[in-house]
Amino acid sequence: MMTPDNDPRKDATASAATTRPGRGGLEGIVAATTALSKVEGTAGRLIYRGYNIHDLARTTTFEEVMHLLWFGHLPNRAELSDLQARLVAERTLPTAVLNILRELPPTAEPMDALRTAVSAWGATSVKGKPTIDQAIGVTARFPLFLAAFHRLRNGLDPLASQSELRHAANYLYLLTEQKPEEQHVRALDAYLVLLADHGMNASTFTARVVASTESDIASAVVAAVGALKGPLHGGAPSKVLDMLQAIETTDRAESWLRDALARGDRLMGFGHRVYKTEDPRAEELREMARLASPQEFALARRVEELALALLEEQKPGRRLYTNVEFYSAVLLASVGLPGDLFTPTFAVSRAAGWTAHILEQVGNNRLIRPEADYTGPDAMRFVSLNER
Amino acid sequence: MMTPDNDPRKDATASAATTRPGRGGLEGIVAATTALSKVEGTAGRLIYRGYNIHDLARTTTFEEVMHLLWFGHLPNRAELSDLQARLVAERTLPTAVLNILRELPPTAEPMDALRTAVSAWGATSVKGKPTIDQAIGVTARFPLFLAAFHRLRNGLDPLASQSELRHAANYLYLLTEQKPEEQHVRALDAYLVLLADHGMNASTFTARVVASTESDIASAVVAAVGALKGPLHGGAPSKVLDMLQAIETTDRAESWLRDALARGDRLMGFGHRVYKTEDPRAEELREMARLASPQEFALARRVEELALALLEEQKPGRRLYTNVEFYSAVLLASVGLPGDLFTPTFAVSRAAGWTAHILEQVGNNRLIRPEADYTGPDAMRFVSLNER
Repeated sequence: MMTPDNDPRKDATASAATTRPGRGGLEGIVAATTALSKVEGTAGRLIYRGYNIHDLARTTTFEEVMHLLWFGHLPNRAELSDLQARLVAERTLPTAVLNILRELPPTAEPMDALRTAVSAWGATSVKGKPTIDQAIGVTARFPLFLAAFHRLRNGLDPLASQSELRHAANYLYLLTEQKPEEQHVRALDAYLVLLADHGMNASTFTARVVASTESDIASAVVAAVGALKGPLHGGAPSKVLDMLQAIETTDRAESWLRDALARGDRLMGFGHRVYKTEDPRAEELREMARLASPQEFALARRVEELALALLEEQKPGRRLYTNVEFYSAVLLASVGLPGDLFTPTFAVSRAAGWTAHILEQVGNNRLIRPEADYTGPDAMRFVSLNER
Repeated sequence: MMTPDNDPRKDATASAATTRPGRGGLEGIVAATTALSKVEGTAGRLIYRGYNIHDLARTTTFEEVMHLLWFGHLPNRAELSDLQARLVAERTLPTAVLNILRELPPTAEPMDALRTAVSAWGATSVKGKPTIDQAIGVTARFPLFLAAFHRLRNGLDPLASQSELRHAANYLYLLTEQKPEEQHVRALDAYLVLLADHGMNASTFTARVVASTESDIASAVVAAVGALKGPLHGGAPSKVLDMLQAIETTDRAESWLRDALARGDRLMGFGHRVYKTEDPRAEELREMARLASPQEFALARRVEELALALLEEQKPGRRLYTNVEFYSAVLLASVGLPGDLFTPTFAVSRAAGWTAHILEQVGNNRLIRPEADYTGPDAMRFVSLNER
């Protein structure tokens, strides 16, 4: 057992030889190896364990992708049935967790409710080092945590899961008490596939840092939820929806967008720091949004086309593309989710990636612990309180 | 607003030029600059904003150190009174947080209860970007969260804080309902000063990563609590106590330690990865433990001397030193804390450092987001479920 704060890399002498002043942000620095996903920004390519995201989004269910991430290969029918049965068996909430959600004010942010519920679940149900059973257990419960809070904040009782429904459909059922429409289920399932993992993003990195201390899976997932809540990572997808609702109709789109740009406003859902071409996920989300609700899609598509044209006109050569946030918002609104559940639903998907990364980290662990450049004074003369 | 997962550093092309294969753990890599503390392992020196830890531990209170970390300088009397008043004013728990603690099973780990309480406090009480008011607010409440859970798990009602007591004394009072002895207060206060910050340790780094996404202060602190829970970071200080209790008396110490070493057991509380000489905190903790309880100290000191001698005898040249965990455990036991509150009490202290780092991060922010080396297959041929 090591001791608190015991790390050789804090030695100032060692540090002096390796410092990279001003390189905050760890850009270009490799913090871990992973076999889970690879993001190629220039090629516009995303793979999960070697499989192209387009094939996965069009053909597989979220359950198949969970299996791929956790177990390393796409399941056959027997393996898929087994995983589905395990997920269904985990669809329970301890009474304590449900009562804790009841205590939160209806005005609490759903990401805060999710973070608290995962933490409470950990306090009641998690012991020892991260296991694949726990990964399945926590991922299975994300829809339950969120739907329970959503029902409670609306004065409604949480519902029991439907064992015949898969993850996406059960989530929609738990929110609405209605059997969801097939095209909504298909769209949400594709969304869950598309957002499940994305290299060493900030929340996944956070989960791996926590797991690297040999803490438990709930601590690591709770930390990741907190990181995804940050707008520089999880984004603010509901603002895309706000924009579309403000535009209202296709015929108002051009003047609205021109006015916004003239005011210097940022258009929500465009521009990207990763992909130098279209984000492969945006392409799939666009098609799924079209499927989920043709009417809402029509406005979104028109706004997208106009926005890209106006941005090219006003910022020629910037090559701005539609980002994953734009059609995430359109898709999630189309399947009936309120705006403040967009980022939490991102978490429903990413839980699969987080837990797979946690298991990967603890399988070949090394404490993740960088250095800091100290910029404060070096030797202050101490003066006691009486002399200050 | 950026989009989810949008970071230029995920580009595989850029990555290829800068990867450091096999450098998991980020050792020697600078992730941030800080003016808060500096750890010099070779010199055995620790400073907070330029002040030597020895001066601070012997002369200042935890409140003065909080002021130093948050406001950048040691307070004069007026500033100290003002901070104390602000801390006292924050000693309240929302009913929801108290009820949430009531819902946790008495067998829950105190670190899990603390993590859940901070999260629930965030859900009920935190809005917007991190502020110094919030830093004061959450740090002031750490003793309340822990003492409330500790009382509840023992079937007792949580107590109201005593406004005339400072942080350390009030914490002891809230746990025991007794006015604490002066030497216990002094020892605990010194402990809180000594553990408040320590460079870019794993929990502080976690807090900064979460804060760098522009998430809220509760999310960042919750994540840090989860990281400190990991034995590779927060340690397992109660195991030192277990060892001392097993040894029982000084005359049994040598044979017990020789037997343990002969069995190949690890002696708890010795060996270090940072300091190449004695950890400056261990020296101060030793003196405070002596003050807090001379009897318990006598056994601990004898065990320390024998252990160091036996380790040198059996592992010559390894130069093992007593680490911060050893006398932390002795000191915290001497002031009356049960073993499973040792790491949570570390959090009571480190909350000051975490929140200071969070404020420092958001004051000059850059998303902390390293890369990963992808080691999985590159182009798997997709096969649909029917063909698997």
